Amino acid sequence: MSKDKRKLVVIALGGNAIKQSNENGTAEEQFRNVEVTCEQLVKMNTLGYKLVITHGNGPQAGNLLIQQEEGKELVPAQPLDVVGAMTQGQIGYMFQNTLQNYFRQIGKEIPITSLITQVLVKKDDPDFNDPSKPVGPFYTEEEAKRLEKEKNYVVKKVKPNGEKLWRRVVPSPEPYTIIEAESIKALIEARAIVIASGGGGIPVMKKDDDSLSGLEAVIDKDKAGNKLAQEVNADIFLVLTDVENACINFGKPDEKALQKISVAEAEEYLAAGHFLAGSMGPKVTAAIRFVKAGGEKAIITSLQKAADALEGKAGTIIEK
Amino acid sequence: MSKDKRKLVVIALGGNAIKQSNENGTAEEQFRNVEVTCEQLVKMNTLGYKLVITHGNGPQAGNLLIQQEEGKELVPAQPLDVVGAMTQGQIGYMFQNTLQNYFRQIGKEIPITSLITQVLVKKDDPDFNDPSKPVGPFYTEEEAKRLEKEKNYVVKKVKPNGEKLWRRVVPSPEPYTIIEAESIKALIEARAIVIASGGGGIPVMKKDDDSLSGLEAVIDKDKAGNKLAQEVNADIFLVLTDVENACINFGKPDEKALQKISVAEAEEYLAAGHFLAGSMGPKVTAAIRFVKAGGEKAIITSLQKAADALEGKAGTIIEK
Repeated sequence: MSKDKRKLVVIALGGNAIKQSNENGTAEEQFRNVEVTCEQLVKMNTLGYKLVITHGNGPQAGNLLIQQEEGKELVPAQPLDVVGAMTQGQIGYMFQNTLQNYFRQIGKEIPITSLITQVLVKKDDPDFNDPSKPVGPFYTEEEAKRLEKEKNYVVKKVKPNGEKLWRRVVPSPEPYTIIEAESIKALIEARAIVIASGGGGIPVMKKDDDSLSGLEAVIDKDKAGNKLAQEVNADIFLVLTDVENACINFGKPDEKALQKISVAEAEEYLAAGHFLAGSMGPKVTAAIRFVKAGGEKAIITSLQKAADALEGKAGTIIEK
Repeated sequence: MSKDKRKLVVIALGGNAIKQSNENGTAEEQFRNVEVTCEQLVKMNTLGYKLVITHGNGPQAGNLLIQQEEGKELVPAQPLDVVGAMTQGQIGYMFQNTLQNYFRQIGKEIPITSLITQVLVKKDDPDFNDPSKPVGPFYTEEEAKRLEKEKNYVVKKVKPNGEKLWRRVVPSPEPYTIIEAESIKALIEARAIVIASGGGGIPVMKKDDDSLSGLEAVIDKDKAGNKLAQEVNADIFLVLTDVENACINFGKPDEKALQKISVAEAEEYLAAGHFLAGSMGPKVTAAIRFVKAGGEKAIITSLQKAADALEGKAGTIIEK
């Protein structure tokens, strides 16, 4: 087999690539959004890039947790690791079906598949002591306190006013290793487009007997995306979000969209607090890590600008 | 890379490999059952076989459909193709995690992964005109008639007495092609253990524009297992169920467990009505198809006898 010299891009898709915040999440809506996303992915393939895709699962996991809650008298709810696996199947199917259909239309035969993916986290991660990531339905204080007792949930008041202000919070530990990296690499080698590590991957931890055990936790998908990109030796790590560029002085009169910057500049801006903690912050962090680990460049941009950004014509591009 | 000369076995696991009928389906219960199953799978690997695993999803899809039903005022239910994808993620994760842990214990490094898998069915399949496969919750006649109107469900009375006698029925078309076969083969080539086509695969059909579209249908997992076995060029197709052998004159005084039989004998017994339509019938049909398509042998037996059966010492073995 002749060596495939195309550059490998790992693409981390945001939640709006699958479900818009003003939608309920019917399958039709989700397939429609996925179609818009896949059109851009096909463009990148046509430009000559090998693709590995990862994606968020917040809205899908949220919906499933609500369904589990509503059905709990009849059917046992599954824990978060299993919920993560279920949404990997759900979203992976939507992407692989839609991408396959695009390529069928242009007569290109490319194996496309989604892999159920676990990601190793570490026992001593500080987030286990102070869980920060809200998941699932909103509760009244009474409901929240009951779940705290009955199910050992950590609950937090997450809204200032309204009827249901409380939510469960779970740890969001740092990702260390993609357990299925060898399989993903074998598929890339076979010229496949792979969808992997959805929702940040299923978090697993080493127990005393060295076995890996699923956790009630959620890994940041951009941070996991960086790990994935590193482990498959990607050339480019492309983080897609709802804006075209990362900005400094965001929301201020002197707001400035970042274009090509160095890792050192990115680190400086990050340290100065230019990027929001729950939003652009983890994306810039993941991008910096990728380039520092030897990646050629990391890009943060919107879906619409993604193909242009790969060609150096849009987005925030972080290089050594 | 030196050619891997071990024989390839595709194993179709029954529902009881994951959830026993007297259980509710908590994650703990399911992981416990999966552990028992994986112990046998590890044995087969140790005997020197390459493994591809497929599995049913009836109880898991059933539970998810109930949760969707209970949550329907808050969250849109997903259609059956998406439900199939979700259970592939759920069950695939349980198997790959548990298998990985067994191999970690004995220090064997084998890539193990689950693939989201679609299976092509044909538009003119007679089952689309007369759906036969019951899925999801039981309904009262009133509820059933309402769903018939509102959602175009085909409903049937499936129990003679009790409060809720009705269920939705969906088509169970014949499987034709495993869409992700190339990816599965690439992983086998990379010496991986692959879990694929869970729940009989996600049924998809060709539309007029040649695109593949998911269906509200369910494919028999043993029949899909045979297709999978054929497409990956398996040597052996192993169908696991809750009995050690297929029997003729089942339940009669002259009941006889079948051991080594020819395809011709199997076809004769099948035609004579020895095997139950919803149970042993499709397994024997799938086994016959596999051997007729060139497979070395097909085996029907219990989980406990599986390793022995591979060595020719147990089970019903169908050969040319």
